[in-house]
This record gives sequence, C-alpha cells and structure tokens, in this order.
Amino acid sequence: MYSQPIVLTCAGRTDAGVHARQQVVTFGVRGKKVEPIRLRNSLNALLAPSVVTSEVSIVETQFDARYAAMWRQYRYLVLNSEIPDPLLATTTWWVDKPLHLESMQEACEALIGLHDFTSFCKRPKDIPNATLVRRLLQAEWTVEPELNGRHELLRFEVAGSAFCHQMVRSLVGTLVDVGRGRFTAAQVGQILAAKDRSLSSNVAPPHALSLWNIGYPGDETPVWLSTPRP
Amino acid sequence: MYSQPIVLTCAGRTDAGVHARQQVVTFGVRGKKVEPIRLRNSLNALLAPSVVTSEVSIVETQFDARYAAMWRQYRYLVLNSEIPDPLLATTTWWVDKPLHLESMQEACEALIGLHDFTSFCKRPKDIPNATLVRRLLQAEWTVEPELNGRHELLRFEVAGSAFCHQMVRSLVGTLVDVGRGRFTAAQVGQILAAKDRSLSSNVAPPHALSLWNIGYPGDETPVWLSTPRP
Repeated sequence: MYSQPIVLTCAGRTDAGVHARQQVVTFGVRGKKVEPIRLRNSLNALLAPSVVTSEVSIVETQFDARYAAMWRQYRYLVLNSEIPDPLLATTTWWVDKPLHLESMQEACEALIGLHDFTSFCKRPKDIPNATLVRRLLQAEWTVEPELNGRHELLRFEVAGSAFCHQMVRSLVGTLVDVGRGRFTAAQVGQILAAKDRSLSSNVAPPHALSLWNIGYPGDETPVWLSTPRP
Repeated sequence: MYSQPIVLTCAGRTDAGVHARQQVVTFGVRGKKVEPIRLRNSLNALLAPSVVTSEVSIVETQFDARYAAMWRQYRYLVLNSEIPDPLLATTTWWVDKPLHLESMQEACEALIGLHDFTSFCKRPKDIPNATLVRRLLQAEWTVEPELNGRHELLRFEVAGSAFCHQMVRSLVGTLVDVGRGRFTAAQVGQILAAKDRSLSSNVAPPHALSLWNIGYPGDETPVWLSTPRP
C-alpha cells in the first residue's frame, strides 16, 4: 500500500489459537501521507472478518504500542455444564464437572500483586535468565450474563502490567483445578511461592482466551484498578 | 449401537450453514433396551461439539417429532455496525449501513397470520403444486442484549406453524432492505400479496440463522403466542 517494508509493534502477544477483542499496533511510514479512514477500510477489505481494524490514528513518532501500554486485560470463558454447546465450542472451554466458584475466587487473592510467576510461565528458550516477575492487577471470576441462552458460563478477567508466555492459560488451568477440588485455594499461594512449573496444572486450551483491553496513560481508570491494593 | 438401521424424524429442517439451538428427533429401536443417559453420553462422545444431544427420553410409539410440533421458532442475528467483528463473524450477518429498526418492525405486521408465502419461498422442485400457505405467529425485531462487548446486534425472532424452504432468510433479506430504505414497510405487504418471488430481496446468508425452539402440546405458552391475534 505504501511500497515500503512496514514493521509492526503490537501491544499484546497471544498464543496460537487465542482471540483478541482489542489489539493496538504502531508502525511508521516514510514520506507518504496516511489517510486513517481509507487505510482502515483497505485493511478491512483485505483482512475481515478474521482480522478487523476498528480505528486508525496518526500518533507522535515516539508513541510505541508496546512500551506505552500500562496494562493488558484478558478474558477466559468456561462453559461449566453437563452438556457441551456447539455454538460456544470455538470460544469457551467446556468443563462438565461442577466447579466451586468461591474457592476459585479465593485462590486468586494470593496471585494479585508483584510476584515471580515462574510456576505459571513457559520460560523463553532464547532468554533463559529473563525475569518472570509480573504485577497482577486483577483476577476475578464471575458468572457471565446470559449468552446464547446459556447461563452456565464462568468468566475469568485478569489484568496485569504484562504477562509471560502461557501465563493466563496456566493460571486458568490451575484455578479450574481448584474449582474441581484437586487443589485447595491455599495451595495456589504455595505453588506460586515454590517457583516450580511442575507444580501447576496443565495450561487451559487457547481458544477460550481473548486479549480484551489494553490500558494507556490518559485512559479512564477501570474499577478494578482504582481499588487500592496492598 | 443397536445393530439395526435407524430412521430419524426431525422436528425442523435447516438449510446448509444454518445452526440449531434446539432440534427434536424421534426414532424407533426394535427389540433392544435404550438407556437414555448412556445413549446421550455415547452420542456426545461421537458427535460433540458440532452436534450435541442434551436429552434422550423414551416416548409413546405414536409420538412423532415432526407432526407433533405445533410451532417452530428461529432467530436471526444482524451485526449493524460500521466495523465487522471477528468473534461474531460465524454467527451474525454484518450489515454496515445503519438500519431503521422501527420500519423493519412495522413491516412485520403484514406478515403475521395465515398467508400464502410464495413471494418468500423457494418452491420445492419435486412437488411444484405444494401449498406455500403458512401461519406466522411471531415476527419481532429487538436490540440483542450486550454480546461479547457489542451493542449493535439486532435480533429477529420469528415463529410459525411451519416454514417453507428459505422462507426465514428471504423474510430477513427483505426486512433488512426495509431497514436500508430500499422498500417501505407498506411495500412488504404488497410483495406478500403479489405471490411473486421475483419481488422479494435476495435471501440473507445462512450462518446467522438458528433454529431456536420447537413447541409441543403441553409446553408452557410463550408470551408472543398468548397475545390474541386477529
């Protein structure tokens, strides 16, 4: 479109199979005028409906979608019912055993704040000494409002400064095991403290996870961020 | 499973690409004991998540899923927004031009009741003289509650004694053209009265349509059925 190589910087990474409701991308164009609406429409003509561009804006040269982001928020959906649902199969994880939501929420308490998440992260092979310390800002299980006539949907909302590889799916896998009664809520804090990935559960499947929101300076403060935390 | 050929009778037909939230199927088994829960679980192990069996019950021999059904209800979802949505692409029809919902609803009035729906039906090739007279019991456009963070979803609920081939999609195509301003609400009544399929719009795409509910004697009466109609 601009007859030059374009290098994209993305605000949030997602594993293969993970969806994104929001994603912010920056790139530079040399010596050409970018018309935002026209570029948005051209991208949608090429990529929709798999990838959709909702807005194009021109920003200061120093704005970087990745480094300017203050937090990322993900959502994970669990269909907790005896019977699966064909219409929800591509966006939810079907778990037939009844889950104990209160224990799953209780287990989240130990995760909030600044921690070394080694027990819940796939260590990057190319940077074996990379820090896996991250700040978790929100971790909430709620019953999703009616979707497609179903009432048995559990929603996990999780936000943090950043996430390491497979971290959200590893947290969901472990928390669902708390809901199943395989771990107590207290054991999740112990798994975190042990910094040993072999203690956490298998990662939850990717197709039920969505990158949901990305926060930048100047955005409205979400409710979960305005509550003071120790 | 029962070592004999099984003949299925379905309550409602759907075109290729159409979903079903509910479907009722009857079949007979000779000389074998059917255990409902076990059969349900076996079917789900074989067919889920594309096809899911939510319940198996043993009924009187004379009960026939198709002939006992008193009404069928379908839902059609239109995403009426400037920008498409990847997560809704497989279950909604994206229409970017703003639709006038009130006119679409007004146009439905002429359709309710017993009519010859020739203008909205694909005539069956094998039975060219088949009657296309059907009774429409409900035809309602509403704004769907928030789904996946989107608020621009229009829901069309339509119920009738029975539907002929492509009838719901033909009605939706024509009503969306009313919303676009191509037809007035009054013209829809004229198209119906003309009994001429060339006057109605192209059928709406199948992937946004779902067979939603099937009514049998003894079921609770839905709100739209309890309102007296002329």
